[in-house]
Amino acid sequence: MKIDINCDMGESFGRYKLGLDEEVIKLISSANVGCGFHAGDPHVMRKTVDMAKQHGVGVGAHPGLPDLLGFGRREMKVSPEELKDYCIYQIGALKAFVEIAGMKLQHVKMHGALLNMGLANEELAVAMCEATKDINPDLIWVTFSGIRTVEIARSIDLKVIQEFYADRAYNADKTLVSRKTPGAVLKDPQQISARINQLIETGTVTTLDGQPLKLAYDSICVHGDTPGALEIIRTIRGIMADHNIAIKPMAELV
Amino acid sequence: MKIDINCDMGESFGRYKLGLDEEVIKLISSANVGCGFHAGDPHVMRKTVDMAKQHGVGVGAHPGLPDLLGFGRREMKVSPEELKDYCIYQIGALKAFVEIAGMKLQHVKMHGALLNMGLANEELAVAMCEATKDINPDLIWVTFSGIRTVEIARSIDLKVIQEFYADRAYNADKTLVSRKTPGAVLKDPQQISARINQLIETGTVTTLDGQPLKLAYDSICVHGDTPGALEIIRTIRGIMADHNIAIKPMAELV
Amino acid sequence: MKIDINCDMGESFGRYKLGLDEEVIKLISSANVGCGFHAGDPHVMRKTVDMAKQHGVGVGAHPGLPDLLGFGRREMKVSPEELKDYCIYQIGALKAFVEIAGMKLQHVKMHGALLNMGLANEELAVAMCEATKDINPDLIWVTFSGIRTVEIARSIDLKVIQEFYADRAYNADKTLVSRKTPGAVLKDPQQISARINQLIETGTVTTLDGQPLKLAYDSICVHGDTPGALEIIRTIRGIMADHNIAIKPMAELV
Amino acid sequence: MKIDINCDMGESFGRYKLGLDEEVIKLISSANVGCGFHAGDPHVMRKTVDMAKQHGVGVGAHPGLPDLLGFGRREMKVSPEELKDYCIYQIGALKAFVEIAGMKLQHVKMHGALLNMGLANEELAVAMCEATKDINPDLIWVTFSGIRTVEIARSIDLKVIQEFYADRAYNADKTLVSRKTPGAVLKDPQQISARINQLIETGTVTTLDGQPLKLAYDSICVHGDTPGALEIIRTIRGIMADHNIAIKPMAELV
Repeated sequence: MKIDINCDMGESFGRYKLGLDEEVIKLISSANVGCGFHAGDPHVMRKTVDMAKQHGVGVGAHPGLPDLLGFGRREMKVSPEELKDYCIYQIGALKAFVEIAGMKLQHVKMHGALLNMGLANEELAVAMCEATKDINPDLIWVTFSGIRTVEIARSIDLKVIQEFYADRAYNADKTLVSRKTPGAVLKDPQQISARINQLIETGTVTTLDGQPLKLAYDSICVHGDTPGALEIIRTIRGIMADHNIAIKPMAELV
Repeated sequence: MKIDINCDMGESFGRYKLGLDEEVIKLISSANVGCGFHAGDPHVMRKTVDMAKQHGVGVGAHPGLPDLLGFGRREMKVSPEELKDYCIYQIGALKAFVEIAGMKLQHVKMHGALLNMGLANEELAVAMCEATKDINPDLIWVTFSGIRTVEIARSIDLKVIQEFYADRAYNADKTLVSRKTPGAVLKDPQQISARINQLIETGTVTTLDGQPLKLAYDSICVHGDTPGALEIIRTIRGIMADHNIAIKPMAELV
Repeated sequence: MKIDINCDMGESFGRYKLGLDEEVIKLISSANVGCGFHAGDPHVMRKTVDMAKQHGVGVGAHPGLPDLLGFGRREMKVSPEELKDYCIYQIGALKAFVEIAGMKLQHVKMHGALLNMGLANEELAVAMCEATKDINPDLIWVTFSGIRTVEIARSIDLKVIQEFYADRAYNADKTLVSRKTPGAVLKDPQQISARINQLIETGTVTTLDGQPLKLAYDSICVHGDTPGALEIIRTIRGIMADHNIAIKPMAELV
Repeated sequence: MKIDINCDMGESFGRYKLGLDEEVIKLISSANVGCGFHAGDPHVMRKTVDMAKQHGVGVGAHPGLPDLLGFGRREMKVSPEELKDYCIYQIGALKAFVEIAGMKLQHVKMHGALLNMGLANEELAVAMCEATKDINPDLIWVTFSGIRTVEIARSIDLKVIQEFYADRAYNADKTLVSRKTPGAVLKDPQQISARINQLIETGTVTTLDGQPLKLAYDSICVHGDTPGALEIIRTIRGIMADHNIAIKPMAELV
């Protein structure tokens, strides 16, 4: 049994530092690296890629909206053509750093508001998936478990990794509860542990309104920008060890 | 006999249009495409690459400083490490569009203040050349004829294309006269014709202070953002035809 | 009888030029000046304000979304608090240039997607109006005729100028037909003349689906970035002269 | 006896947080607030101004270069005209927030590379001072003690506050030692204490190369983005209390 742990990284910008990348990188198997639109800059990208290489972590592109001020979390009415080109630009830029480091770009995962925009608008979802495939048909498409974009990606022959959000509450339709809703973000390691144990043992998560929800999963998504982040990730690693599940970059899972 | 004609292109941004790209692309053999820092955006990049493909024009990256407001023409005190990463980011982004269009990225040519910064600072020049080589050692390094960066690029085994600026006056040290100096920018097609005839026939250009200056050249650099641009380029093409010199993308010249 | 003619101006950015400001400024009575978010930059702002002063044109702020790449035309999910602060920032910046030129800031008019966002979302509309009032309760609020934001602005005691769009088709609810709909943008001076004559003589405009629509109006909004712009504005001035209607900055109308 | 303590504040941006503003604001008397070019955004500006009001702290504008990626610390070849307009834009934007909060803008202090550019280039220094005066001739010009810009500001009748950098080493010409030089930034509260005691008791500071340097001073400049910042500021306050020197906003000192 194998599983991947993925985390957003490289979201610092210039003098602004975000996240505990230097610590988190040692505990995960795949990194979603900011590409300079919602966060990240060329220098941060290089350093993040180099750290990932050093620790055997798979590198993916984490494209966002051109909204540094809003950290890519505010939906924008971009056209599918614009979005496709924004994704190609960002993935291409990161790919250059990855290849210079002697690695292969592993995956693509959308950031922030792009996730919701892809769920709400099929044309935008297709644009994202096509950008990924156009760059390289071997790239892995990473997204929430059980979501429409899983099918869209598969329909154009992209390999898909479905992820479980360890620290976010779920709606019954398998989407994440909005950050604005109380209870949306989990911070208690024990609560997170219980959820992951449940997921491994029953294949389900309990939604915010108390219903069990069956979820496929290949990867656990964690976050590295909260004070308790390291403890949460270590807890997850412990659970995986207890269940004899090896933590491996998603390239080894598809 | 062969020669290349290169021109900066893809320097529009969002709703802002710059240059006569649709017309100029039919008259040149190599395009230096803006990469989104000093000018250009992902959508413009795609369109420019597609146009270049349609007209058999070789595509190069034209990286600039992160200064859209100043069009990359204002020197900035960036470190060699920063500059190298800015170049890799921009070249990588453009390379993605070029490869998706089924072409190979042909060359790299620095924009605006980066040209002067490379001349004035050896470490910065090395950073630019190394970024180019790191992306792909087959990329052609394009720069002014006879300049220090020609040697730097060759010293790390980059192929070099030396260019002649058809519409700019020269100093005795082979640098361009600053745009702020009267007489720096030539607009009269007849004057430009005379210069190019002189170059082809004698291998020299006359500097602003009246001295003959020997210049090696593989490519003529033209500009597409002035009203007389098309006439100037057509004039240059006519001169080449008169001398039985074929106009070819620089990849065919190295 | 008096009327105002207003036009967006100062939407150039760095080396990018937009519109025929130098010509248009002579033909209008109020200028809506870009404030650096969707378009415009500090240098352009100064020059535009100075031109307006020279020609006796009233100056207003034209705040936009922080989206230069999309020219402020793409809706973004900003919060009312964010929007209010974006408006204050932009209006405050322009006000400084206006006061240094020895004038008083005359009005505020939202740009692009902000117009639609204000129509669709009452909280955002209130935020825009409050930002205006907080800067100075004497500022004039300029917006489409007969629209909800007219009431909102009046409810907080802002003076309101209602404008008629000379070159845009209307829906029955007094909103503008989307630019994406065929027939949304009028370019034929004769057609525009007929509409304005109808407006002056009957107080109505004919909607895209052929119905007469009663509209209050204090100002005619024109655009300066199309080839026929000057002819259209001159035509409008001629119609006003024929009807003995003086063209005056909106400050003289409230 | 009175003295001012000033600190840069409001240099967060969007999701990126910088400095301990909430704590520092309680310990200082004047805040230099980022204006959105090198750091800060409209929302951060409002919050910072509101905090300053709550704690009786004087508010000044802290304009920077348009280089968020470089935090305004990289010199750029801007013209005096460009710089003047950048300053007016930024000061004007902040002034709006300050006046909406019911305060008066107190002072202007340049950020980062602008300080050095003003020292190295008289035309740029004049442009900065004129921008300040054009906004309001009552604004206080804040700068290093004993520096050329003190004279320039006074020559156009600006009031001047001269500041001492508590945590930075000095050159013999009264400039700060470059951050790149070892020993340039002091972090040890005891060392900083000794320097301030020396300054108060002898009116001198010891330069990096060991010479005593006479310095006029009205304000102590502290920084709030280092772990030891609060302890350093509290130490300085203690020294002032020991010497019966009251800590007051600079408006009370001119």
